[in-house]
Amino acid sequence: MLLKNNIPFKYVFGKIKYEVLLVAVYTLIIVILHDRFNLKHMAIPLSVPMIMGTVISLLLAFRSNQAYDRWWEARTIWGAIVNDSRSFTRQVLSFVDDSAYESEEINHFRERMVRRQIAWCYALSQSLRGLDGKDGLEKHISKREVAYVSRFANIPMALLDLHARDLNYALKKGWLNEFQQVTLDQTLSRLCDAMGKCERIKNTVFPATYSLYIHFAMNFFILLLPFALIEYFGLIEVPLVVAIAASFLLIEKMAIHLQDPFDNKPTDTPMTTISRNIERDLKQLLNDHHLPETTQNVDHKFYVM
Amino acid sequence: MLLKNNIPFKYVFGKIKYEVLLVAVYTLIIVILHDRFNLKHMAIPLSVPMIMGTVISLLLAFRSNQAYDRWWEARTIWGAIVNDSRSFTRQVLSFVDDSAYESEEINHFRERMVRRQIAWCYALSQSLRGLDGKDGLEKHISKREVAYVSRFANIPMALLDLHARDLNYALKKGWLNEFQQVTLDQTLSRLCDAMGKCERIKNTVFPATYSLYIHFAMNFFILLLPFALIEYFGLIEVPLVVAIAASFLLIEKMAIHLQDPFDNKPTDTPMTTISRNIERDLKQLLNDHHLPETTQNVDHKFYVM
Amino acid sequence: MLLKNNIPFKYVFGKIKYEVLLVAVYTLIIVILHDRFNLKHMAIPLSVPMIMGTVISLLLAFRSNQAYDRWWEARTIWGAIVNDSRSFTRQVLSFVDDSAYESEEINHFRERMVRRQIAWCYALSQSLRGLDGKDGLEKHISKREVAYVSRFANIPMALLDLHARDLNYALKKGWLNEFQQVTLDQTLSRLCDAMGKCERIKNTVFPATYSLYIHFAMNFFILLLPFALIEYFGLIEVPLVVAIAASFLLIEKMAIHLQDPFDNKPTDTPMTTISRNIERDLKQLLNDHHLPETTQNVDHKFYVM
Amino acid sequence: MLLKNNIPFKYVFGKIKYEVLLVAVYTLIIVILHDRFNLKHMAIPLSVPMIMGTVISLLLAFRSNQAYDRWWEARTIWGAIVNDSRSFTRQVLSFVDDSAYESEEINHFRERMVRRQIAWCYALSQSLRGLDGKDGLEKHISKREVAYVSRFANIPMALLDLHARDLNYALKKGWLNEFQQVTLDQTLSRLCDAMGKCERIKNTVFPATYSLYIHFAMNFFILLLPFALIEYFGLIEVPLVVAIAASFLLIEKMAIHLQDPFDNKPTDTPMTTISRNIERDLKQLLNDHHLPETTQNVDHKFYVM
Amino acid sequence: MLLKNNIPFKYVFGKIKYEVLLVAVYTLIIVILHDRFNLKHMAIPLSVPMIMGTVISLLLAFRSNQAYDRWWEARTIWGAIVNDSRSFTRQVLSFVDDSAYESEEINHFRERMVRRQIAWCYALSQSLRGLDGKDGLEKHISKREVAYVSRFANIPMALLDLHARDLNYALKKGWLNEFQQVTLDQTLSRLCDAMGKCERIKNTVFPATYSLYIHFAMNFFILLLPFALIEYFGLIEVPLVVAIAASFLLIEKMAIHLQDPFDNKPTDTPMTTISRNIERDLKQLLNDHHLPETTQNVDHKFYVM
Repeated sequence: MLLKNNIPFKYVFGKIKYEVLLVAVYTLIIVILHDRFNLKHMAIPLSVPMIMGTVISLLLAFRSNQAYDRWWEARTIWGAIVNDSRSFTRQVLSFVDDSAYESEEINHFRERMVRRQIAWCYALSQSLRGLDGKDGLEKHISKREVAYVSRFANIPMALLDLHARDLNYALKKGWLNEFQQVTLDQTLSRLCDAMGKCERIKNTVFPATYSLYIHFAMNFFILLLPFALIEYFGLIEVPLVVAIAASFLLIEKMAIHLQDPFDNKPTDTPMTTISRNIERDLKQLLNDHHLPETTQNVDHKFYVM
Repeated sequence: MLLKNNIPFKYVFGKIKYEVLLVAVYTLIIVILHDRFNLKHMAIPLSVPMIMGTVISLLLAFRSNQAYDRWWEARTIWGAIVNDSRSFTRQVLSFVDDSAYESEEINHFRERMVRRQIAWCYALSQSLRGLDGKDGLEKHISKREVAYVSRFANIPMALLDLHARDLNYALKKGWLNEFQQVTLDQTLSRLCDAMGKCERIKNTVFPATYSLYIHFAMNFFILLLPFALIEYFGLIEVPLVVAIAASFLLIEKMAIHLQDPFDNKPTDTPMTTISRNIERDLKQLLNDHHLPETTQNVDHKFYVM
Repeated sequence: MLLKNNIPFKYVFGKIKYEVLLVAVYTLIIVILHDRFNLKHMAIPLSVPMIMGTVISLLLAFRSNQAYDRWWEARTIWGAIVNDSRSFTRQVLSFVDDSAYESEEINHFRERMVRRQIAWCYALSQSLRGLDGKDGLEKHISKREVAYVSRFANIPMALLDLHARDLNYALKKGWLNEFQQVTLDQTLSRLCDAMGKCERIKNTVFPATYSLYIHFAMNFFILLLPFALIEYFGLIEVPLVVAIAASFLLIEKMAIHLQDPFDNKPTDTPMTTISRNIERDLKQLLNDHHLPETTQNVDHKFYVM
Repeated sequence: MLLKNNIPFKYVFGKIKYEVLLVAVYTLIIVILHDRFNLKHMAIPLSVPMIMGTVISLLLAFRSNQAYDRWWEARTIWGAIVNDSRSFTRQVLSFVDDSAYESEEINHFRERMVRRQIAWCYALSQSLRGLDGKDGLEKHISKREVAYVSRFANIPMALLDLHARDLNYALKKGWLNEFQQVTLDQTLSRLCDAMGKCERIKNTVFPATYSLYIHFAMNFFILLLPFALIEYFGLIEVPLVVAIAASFLLIEKMAIHLQDPFDNKPTDTPMTTISRNIERDLKQLLNDHHLPETTQNVDHKFYVM
Repeated sequence: MLLKNNIPFKYVFGKIKYEVLLVAVYTLIIVILHDRFNLKHMAIPLSVPMIMGTVISLLLAFRSNQAYDRWWEARTIWGAIVNDSRSFTRQVLSFVDDSAYESEEINHFRERMVRRQIAWCYALSQSLRGLDGKDGLEKHISKREVAYVSRFANIPMALLDLHARDLNYALKKGWLNEFQQVTLDQTLSRLCDAMGKCERIKNTVFPATYSLYIHFAMNFFILLLPFALIEYFGLIEVPLVVAIAASFLLIEKMAIHLQDPFDNKPTDTPMTTISRNIERDLKQLLNDHHLPETTQNVDHKFYVM
């Protein structure tokens, strides 16, 4: 979850502490070997790491770009889920008129649709995180519906199926006209698209060969670095090499974190927070101003669990 | 707000004045230490900052790109709001015919819809700026509607809800046919999308770890610079280092400004100006040529407040 | 207007002639100072401008990219205007059947719609160039319509409003069925979008702080250049520095030209030519093979005026 | 046309043979001058071309990118033409039912529509190549239709107009219902968009000032190269300079080829091949398994003609 | 197929083993020549490969980008196929009501449509891999349908044609209303688009001239490398040159693999796995919880065959 000022820095830097320690020890050994045994010919010209530096920088920039794009696409999809959930609710509530004589049944229908949409958001967020999509559904939909969707491998898809069946029922009852049904079905198609896009990002890894190669080339570059700087510095080389190495290691780490935006990390897409906001908005449209308890750091707790 | 020639340059350069001062003093100290105490071995080869320079330049370019994209996307969304507000008005006015016998009620309906659309633009711009979205609504919608929307956390969403209810009312009255209602509802969905996209940009910070890392690496690079140049220059090094450092600091500052396009800064999306233009156009379509007073610098005043 | 082989090169190079002259004089002075007074310590190492060169190159590439994108988007929008004008005409002519008994009135309606679409293209192109959008409208629409649209600040929007009113009239007359009206209205919405997108590009300047910073950094780089090269060359340095400086100055100039594609420059979007082609195509669909006189260099003359 | 292994390499390298020869002779002269007359001060430091090398590389990358994008967009548009031609045919054949009693007339209608769609593809491909769009139309549409479209400047647009008229006829006959007509019209609008997009790419040149500047800067860089390398090499400099220069010249050449994807070059969009595939698929849907003769290298022959 | 941790690394590195060996031997020969025969003037300054290094790095980055985009587009298209297959099924099952009296025939219709959609996915994946699209179809559709589609060159297109005919049949039977038919037809159009996009990626090679040029320039750069490093290192140059060369060779290899995402390689789009997931989901919607046997490594086996 990316909210201002709440990235646990220690968490991030903690991730590279072993690498940094290793680089420090490695550089120290080289410095000592060089100074004690006066191995002058160990030094290599700075141009050698510079040639590699350009291509590695470009590859890291390329990778950062793709990782950022995946992360931003994930965020955009969840933005679309917010929009389509609201549009779906607006359409259900305005198309299905509650002023008719059979208003109790209609009211129940309207509420059932909207609450199921809330359930859909939570179920999708759970299943993207690899958790059980059925967890907590009983707060929003009936037991019979929970039982029905449990038979499916893909819970959110089953919920959309229930939506579609109910729309057909409303059409037959005359609560919706034919255009309205088709319009609502198009909103369902957009929700179905959003769901599938999330699954695509979740299931498609960044080409492993690229990651692997960039990882190797960068480490090779870091291994060369002390030899290139040894001519100019003594012991002061150690913090210098550590600082440069840390920069490269951190960029790679950041790319790795961003590229899997549904993987239960602090840089994750804040799906629980977004689902809660959807719940609040949709319930208010239903005139239910009893908001969900917004325990602070709800996504944070999630990670702690 | 980005209009030609009205960026307060002093404002922009003022932002880095402390950093620049610090760099100047820091470089001066190094020059003095070097010259007075003749510490020759303080110098490091220029290639060291050059290696870092390439990767930092690429990262700054990457960041500038993403910041620019966020800013341009914000501007594009508000462009779409202009377009859809005009289309919505055109559709309401041409679909709902005012030549029928019950024309007074219809006329009132047409005007109510269009004025509510104006209100929606202002309310969205207020709430994106973190201000009270209800401010000034009473100029455009009735008190009863103001009271209704006040119960919602998300004022613009509540206004769209009122739009949708009115469309359903018009359908039942026979003022709209079934296709026209669905077409107008699709326009509402597009407006709902635009609103959600703005909220997404507002609520999603640029990955804090990237910003942080780029910030650290850049400052480390600036700290190394005087050591690398000290061999060649005497006191003249101070303005040189300051100028190079200022370039890097400025690019970072610009990226920070552009990346949050709804944050009450002079580089902000000019939402108030755009809303006023929408108001002017929509009122003219209603044959109301009594334009809103266009106090100059309306967005500027906004920031002063 | 960008047609092959007709960019006035003198015009382009003429734009940087003062800068080039200045650079030449400035370099000459430095060379003379250096040679006459034997100021050896004036020279600085080439690596200093090289560090800046990388970051400036990246920023210029970034800027060229954004400028090109704006220019290409403008061109794409006008491409969409061509497409939607043709689709609008095709729909009007095929949906509204002229074989009925009241064919004279219908024929007049069909022709009025198509000619107004031609007027819309010219009006939009005029108003984007900051000229009076009403100029020449009387060639395509009736005086009463000219009078009506004159009351609007935004002439093309008013023309779309007239389109929509006429469509509603045709629906009531039974010339269009309900689906056809809605389909035509969607085409109007696309035209409305295109208009708004042009206005967005026209009204949103490239972030002035970026331009400013890139401008400063580049000039600082050019000022350093003669000092860096002075060691190696004598008087021959002058053309060398001029050539390098001219390259950078020209790229910046090109970006400035492309970034405002509606600003009456030779690199402009050829809106008049495009509008003429639309007029030709639409008139042929109306069976009016009396084409508009295609004075050569129509856009060129435009600039001369 | 880009099919595997059939780029005529000789053709490509042949394009730069004069430039390469020129560079070789030029370098040779410099080497001879340097060696014979011992002009030591002719040498310039390698850093000078390196500064230019970075900015030229970035500009070439920028240009390659834009050229590739134009080429890929052209290919994507023709991909969309394939898709929409198939969808159009599927819709015509499934919407217009051939089991009714008036089946002969209907069958003729269905076949006429599909064959005209084939004609449209060929006509568009001809007119994009600057050839006569009417050539070969008589194989697919009736003489009367050929005569009708001949009066238009834009043949494919006229064919879409005939499509639309026939759809309206089918609506009046009751062969299509109102929704189906509108749906088919939307497919026509997509085809109209594709046509306009091709024309946009065809008619909009890559900004000539950019091309020109990149061309000048690159040649200036090549002219400097021998002076920079002369210190280190003797006669062996000639092949080295030629090889480096050839690299840069080739990239520029490739960008020039890709940027005009409708210009009768071997790297062209394979419009004839694509049209033939469309013809095959559409005829099979019509149950006409008499396929067009697929002379191998159909696009190749095209260039030879 | 890209699933975590299952790229056969040996496979990847195996691909460059001959190149690496060649580079090693080549470098060794140069080192021996240099050391034995003391050919001092063989050495060239490191700046020469550095100039080329920048432009080659940029071109490799450009190529990696385009290759990644093709690969990601392929993945996105198959994601859309998942979404549209689900939407299609949801629409068929909810629009066509099975509670009517003629329910057996309807049930058969519903099942036939859904199973044919499963068949479509498998057939598309087969034909994109250049295999026989008819293989295994008989598991999902009737023999008569298999016979029908066999007459077509493009099997998936023929299946969509059958879909469309069945929809028309359902319309005539009254199982679908007119809007529902058109809505389902739009889903078919999206599936048709996805199919055409896959074919476009499959049939359009990355511009061969670019690949060729990048290949030549990179190899030329590798050939120069040993001469540039020979001054500084002795035998230790061999692993250094091999490591740097391997980096460049690997990036090129990766780009070549990613750029053809339908070519039966381990980095391929996992079409069989995706099709199986679609089969599972669609069958569950049909209440058929008899899932397809999910032999592990189904795509892997594919490559082994």
